[in-house]
Formats: sequence, structure tokens, C-alpha cells
Amino acid sequence: MLQKVLRQIDDNLEQSLTRLFALLRLKSISTDPAFKEDCVETADWLVRELQTLGFRGSRRMTDGNPMVVAHHHGPSKDCLHVLFYGHYDVQPVDPLELWHDDPFQPALKKLGEKQVIVGRGAADDKGQLMTFIEACRAFKAVNGELPVAVTILLEGEEESGSPSFIPFLESNSDELKADLALVCDTTMWNETTPSITMALRGLLSQEITIKAANRDLHSGLYGGAAANPITILSKILADLHDANGHVTVPHFYDGVEDTPKELLQSWHALNFRAEDFLAPIGLSVPYGENNYSLLELIWARPTAEVNGISGGHEGEGFKTVIPSTAHAKVSFRLVQGQDPNQIRDAFQAFVRARVPVDCSVSFKDYGAAPAFQLPYDLPFLKKAQVALSEEWAHETALVASGGSIPCVGDFQRILNMPSLLVGFSLDDDNIHAPNEKYDLKSFHKGQRSWARILLSLAN
Amino acid sequence: MLQKVLRQIDDNLEQSLTRLFALLRLKSISTDPAFKEDCVETADWLVRELQTLGFRGSRRMTDGNPMVVAHHHGPSKDCLHVLFYGHYDVQPVDPLELWHDDPFQPALKKLGEKQVIVGRGAADDKGQLMTFIEACRAFKAVNGELPVAVTILLEGEEESGSPSFIPFLESNSDELKADLALVCDTTMWNETTPSITMALRGLLSQEITIKAANRDLHSGLYGGAAANPITILSKILADLHDANGHVTVPHFYDGVEDTPKELLQSWHALNFRAEDFLAPIGLSVPYGENNYSLLELIWARPTAEVNGISGGHEGEGFKTVIPSTAHAKVSFRLVQGQDPNQIRDAFQAFVRARVPVDCSVSFKDYGAAPAFQLPYDLPFLKKAQVALSEEWAHETALVASGGSIPCVGDFQRILNMPSLLVGFSLDDDNIHAPNEKYDLKSFHKGQRSWARILLSLAN
Repeated sequence: MLQKVLRQIDDNLEQSLTRLFALLRLKSISTDPAFKEDCVETADWLVRELQTLGFRGSRRMTDGNPMVVAHHHGPSKDCLHVLFYGHYDVQPVDPLELWHDDPFQPALKKLGEKQVIVGRGAADDKGQLMTFIEACRAFKAVNGELPVAVTILLEGEEESGSPSFIPFLESNSDELKADLALVCDTTMWNETTPSITMALRGLLSQEITIKAANRDLHSGLYGGAAANPITILSKILADLHDANGHVTVPHFYDGVEDTPKELLQSWHALNFRAEDFLAPIGLSVPYGENNYSLLELIWARPTAEVNGISGGHEGEGFKTVIPSTAHAKVSFRLVQGQDPNQIRDAFQAFVRARVPVDCSVSFKDYGAAPAFQLPYDLPFLKKAQVALSEEWAHETALVASGGSIPCVGDFQRILNMPSLLVGFSLDDDNIHAPNEKYDLKSFHKGQRSWARILLSLAN
Repeated sequence: MLQKVLRQIDDNLEQSLTRLFALLRLKSISTDPAFKEDCVETADWLVRELQTLGFRGSRRMTDGNPMVVAHHHGPSKDCLHVLFYGHYDVQPVDPLELWHDDPFQPALKKLGEKQVIVGRGAADDKGQLMTFIEACRAFKAVNGELPVAVTILLEGEEESGSPSFIPFLESNSDELKADLALVCDTTMWNETTPSITMALRGLLSQEITIKAANRDLHSGLYGGAAANPITILSKILADLHDANGHVTVPHFYDGVEDTPKELLQSWHALNFRAEDFLAPIGLSVPYGENNYSLLELIWARPTAEVNGISGGHEGEGFKTVIPSTAHAKVSFRLVQGQDPNQIRDAFQAFVRARVPVDCSVSFKDYGAAPAFQLPYDLPFLKKAQVALSEEWAHETALVASGGSIPCVGDFQRILNMPSLLVGFSLDDDNIHAPNEKYDLKSFHKGQRSWARILLSLAN
């Protein structure tokens, strides 16, 4: 049966691409309320697709964007039951002027020797979630059945902190509980090496607003006498790291353990060269904490980053103003052992201690998720590893990832369900940036990989 | 004759207000190229007004916004010849949401016991320049003549660094040279105390752009390993001042002299209370350099201020990005003895020394003007002082100002022409900020003040 399913996938690549393009044209930006209706439309599109495949699917309302939930029975009552997770929302597209084409007019383009799918969401996560749905389509076409029972859960708020996700999981735990979650939102080690992600950093996101005077001031009339909130904010942000790149928030590293030697050795065997990672983005030396290898820095060490800053006159020209307020968006990548709530409190105290008299600070919370570490003895792991190695004709790497995928921790905690993280995007896919792309090969072999994994898990 | 002219001004206040409103409706924002045509339209409006009054006036093209130049003969060949300077361009109106009304739909409003003219440019500088033009109108109506020969020069780029001003002065020096410049772009000491401004701080404006990676990066994939230009920029801006509020740019204070004791004593006599100055803007303690009085800080000490900052995701929501670039607009208020060009070089070197490997910095220049200190023995000064004291029934204060008026230095240097700075706006006029206003009393008594000054200078 496997060969038939794989051939079905090969023969229908063009049609699957047409479907993906239709999905990519929908502007499901979840971080901007202006695109709320587009998110609903995208959920509806997915529900219709899944119903076409024989899933019982529906759009499920939340306080934010809707969830898509769909169920398909397996070959028998006691067969394996997997829950597939993906997200249909995408990142904003600014700065728009850096895109070579309209981010919501996807196209197949040549990039060197490769063909790539270009558009917002191509890799994160619409292209990835469609690899799984297209694999299910191939099973149905060949066999009329799926090899395992499948629940599909597609979220519409992953890029904006998933505010509805935990309440939804809690309210629908009986319906959503399965033996294993399959999550497709990660990268391959490189173009030829398939990967399973064993550890993920958590994420804590905060917006700070510093307020000084009650209105914008003329810097000639008040300069030298009035507090400048940009200067105050700059001093706070400058204080966030010491000269060695360590985060200075008190107790930030409490509970953080050294990476196990065996894991470090296996990472060393990947022959990862810092210069290869940095050269494509125009850099040559790693920043961040001294005395750690680059892989540790991005996989196993926590960070603090400023993701946005604004204040005063930002447009064309010059305005000699001392603004009333200044804003920064700061996020922390967290590792195993760090409690996001404790770090939020410590960070807010750190900022408050640096706000001078007459000025005030307010915080806006954009969500918090702990890090996740997958148990290395997971029984399903070996099967998936073998299936991936066969498809790609290359040994599967067991890696960590610097990005957070909060659902993984939520599945474990709320549904007591382990997750298997397999994804096919690449580091140069420009996710969260202009000109996002997904290799046609990722999309094609991703479908074939899921076909192999599902059959392998079923046996 | 004086009484007739003053009565003419009183009787025509309503009509003069109608004319000012027409001028305030024109969106002559010079810092934003989108309003280029509005600036031209404003210049044309002023030329027509001045022609109506019998001036030989025309719009004079420059590389930027046009100048308005108009001439009117005096009562005799050897009479005094003054050049009146004002600027018809205005500041941008952002943040627009903080305006109570459309900034370009001026209106007369009640503010406590007072009537005020509300709208962008009401005080800076359209309302002020119209006080002079309306005074000329009254002389013409009463006498058919002006008491002195008058050249009027109205600039359209004062709020954007006056890039065309020096070239225009140099190319038209014979035409523009007069005995004395009258500049109406300053404030009164308070609502009852007329003022002549004796010293002005200079201004140096620079935009910095820090570039790190060649594209925006996902903070999960790259965070901890890639340079963050916002953090680098924050560290530079945080370094600009030491713990005592002094500017740390090397040689910044070279040539800066202590304020003369007599001047400090006369300022002390003004009974200026820091809390009165700061309370209206919601502050209570002076920032800036330790060990200086507030008046020294804003009148006689140089400063560094960040007027704008931007980078990464600034809109609604959260985006876990490490941006490629970050930007800041920084300006320096300069005092007598500081060379703007030397300080520009020192600042750029200061920044460059703090840009780490792999990152780069670029600068954009928004103009530089030295400080100006008026000679205290100017013969015209006493006459103007007496005329103002009579109109306002209050002794005229000799003050300094923290804001720069670069034209004053240019008049001295290029035309060897001293300037008399008399203005009627107030510290609470919200210039460069939302809800800019100009007291009706300032507009009315400003016209009367110029009538008195012109007659007094003529004799």
C-alpha cells in the first residue's frame, strides 16, 4: 500500500499546490485585529477541505480566532489515534516594501536549482499543515481509509500568543485527547537531513511603555530640564545584558541546567559551523553569551531580545520633540527549568527599579509558555525516525529548536499527550520576514514523509 | 498718529482673525514631502496678501519650499530699513489622535477666562508673523505709508532645518540687507511680561541607522546568536549621558563658558520656580545636568536629546523578530562657544566607536546652526524695550531661549545685520505638540506692539 500512496502523492502534486495557493491567498494575520474576518474565512476554507476528505469537521468559535477541529475514524476501534496540530494564522507582512511580490499572491519561483513556493505563510505554517492533509487525501484516494484514527486541530492565534488555546483544550479535553500529537511547525536540519525536534524554548512576551511628561514637548523649550522617555527606555534596554551577553534580570538563570554531555556530543557530530549559519544573514560572529557554542546559544540557552521599539518622531524629516511616551516589545526565550511567571515578575521589577521619579511604566502581556523537553524514550520516536530516514535516504537528526511551540507543553500538561515534532521547512525560508518561501521539495516530500510515518505508526 | 493706528488695529481685529484662519487652514508641513504643494500654496497666499498691502512681493523658488520676499518703501530715502522674518511652514501633526479638533480647521475657543486661537501653526509661526503684517496694514489704512522701509522675508523650511535659507541669503544679500532684522518667533516671559530674547541655543540634528543582519530574523531561530540592532542602539543612546546628566561625547563642552553673574542675577530676579514650569507638563523635578538652575539648563546649557526611535515591530500585537535595522533621531542644543561641525564629528566618532563587528552605522544630516548671543549694547534695543513696556504696562524682560532660531545667526554672519527678537507666544501654547494655540490677546496686542516698535524705531 505504501508505494501506491506515495505514487498518488507524486501524481497529484500539481493539484495539491493549487490548493495550497488558495490557502496562501487568505490574509490570516492574527496579530492585527484588522484581519479578523480573513482569519474566519481561512478557518471556513479549511473546514470545507477537510469535509471533502470525509472528516467530520467544523469551525469552533473562541474569544479570538476560531479553531478548526475535524475527526476521521481509523481502520478499527482500538487502532492508534493521533492528533495533528498546525496553525493557519500568519505573521504580519511589514516591512511590505522589502517583499519582491505581493505576500498574499503566492507563486512558484525558481531559486537557483530549486523551485520554491513564495508567500506569507508558505513555510509558517500553511505549507507545513497541508503536507499532512495531503497525505491523508492520498490514503483516502488509494484505500478509502486512513491507517490510524486522526483528529486535526488547526489554530488561528499561534502568531499572537495563542490566548484561546489553553481554554479551548481545557473545555474540549475529552474530544481532543489522543495517543500522540503530531506537530508540523519545525525545520529540517538541512535540505537533505530530516529531523525530529526533541526540545523547544519557551517564550515570554512583554510590551513596556515609559511615560514622562503629560504631552509631547519642544526640545528647545524643555530640553535639559524634562525627562526623556526614550533615553530612560534606552538605559533600561541597555541594562538587560551585561558585557558578556548574560541577561541581568535577577534570578533569570535560576533552574537552568547545563546541557547533558551526550546531547552536546551528538550536536557536535552534526558538524555545524557558526559561519555557515551566520553568513547567509550577513553576519560572521555569534553574539549572545560568551563561552557557549552557537548551537547551545540558539537551542539550549535562554535569551532576552528587543523585538520592537518606538517613540517620538519616526517618519520622514526631523521633529525636535521630547515625546511623552516610548514603547518597547521585549521577549524572552526560555529553557527547561525556567518558570515564565516568575521571570515576568522579575523582569517587571527590574524595569520598575529603573524608572525615575515623575515617570511611570506600564506593561502589556503577550503570553507566556514554558520550554518543552521531549522524553527521549518515547516508543513512537524510533518508528518515525526510521520512516523519515527511508524517505530522505539520510539518517534523521534529533535536534532542539530555539523557537517556541507552546502547544507542545499544553498537550502534555492538559491532555497528558506527548508530541512528535516533524517539519520540513528550512532555515532560509524567511519565516516572520519578507519573502517567506517553502521549497517545493519540502512540500512534496513532506507529504510522502507523513504517509510513511502514519503507516509506520499504525503497525 | 500712534493712537489712530492702535485704534485701527482694535477696530479690525475680527477681520485680521479671518485672514489668520485662512492662513492656518493651509497644510504647510515642511518636514513631510507629501505636503510640498500645500507649502507652495501657502507662499502664494502670503504673496497675494502682501501685494494687497502695496508691497512688491513675489514667491521665490529654492531647491526646497519657496521663500516669500516683499518690499515696501519708507517715508524717505534715508529712513530706517528693517527686514521682518517669519516662517510659514509648520510642524507635523502626529499623534493626530491627541488633537481635540482637526489641526487644520482653526477655531476661536474659550480656555478658562481667555480666548485662544487653536490650530497647527497658530503660535509657531503663522499667528506671530501675521501680527507684523497686520500692524503694517493698520499703518497703510491710517496713513497710506509705513513709518520705516520694510522688507518681509517668510521662510517655508524653518521646521525642517532650513536647507535653502543660507544659499538664498547668500544669493540675494544685496536685496535682503537692511539695518536691522525683526524676528517674531519667540515667547513672552509670561502672559503679562513682554520679552526680548537676547540669546538662543543652536541646534545640530542627526539621524542614526544601525544595521546588523541583512534581513529581519526570527528571534526563536536566531535569538542568542545574532546581533540585535535595537539593543546596540539602546546602549549607544544610554551612553550619551552620564549619571549626573552630562553629555559624554568627548570635547562636547569645549568652549562652553559659565553664564555671566549679572545675567544669572537678572534671571534670578524673574522669580522663576521650577515647579511652576514643570507642573503643567506633569513633572516635578528637573532632569539634565546636576548643579544648574532650571533656567540655566534650558537657556544656557547644551543638551543631547533623542527625538525619535524606531525599529522592529511597532504596531499592534507582537512579532518575535530581530530586525535588520534600528533608527534614532538625535539632536543637540548648542550654546555660545560650541562649533556644530566639530560636535557633529565628535558625535559620529562616539557612535562609531560603539558599533560592534558585523554591524554598521549610517548618519543622515538634518542641519546645524550655532548658538547666538545678541550684543547687549544694541542701540535699537532700548527703543523696543520702552515700546513694549508701554503696550503691556509691564517692564520688558531680557531673556534667553532654549530653542534655536538659526536665521538670527545667518543674518549676522551673511548680512552683518543684528536681530531684534520679539514674540508674543506663551509657554503653554503647545507648539510642536497636539492642540497648538495662540492667545487672542497675543495676536491682538502683538499687532499693537509692532505698531509701537515701528514708530519708535522710526524716530
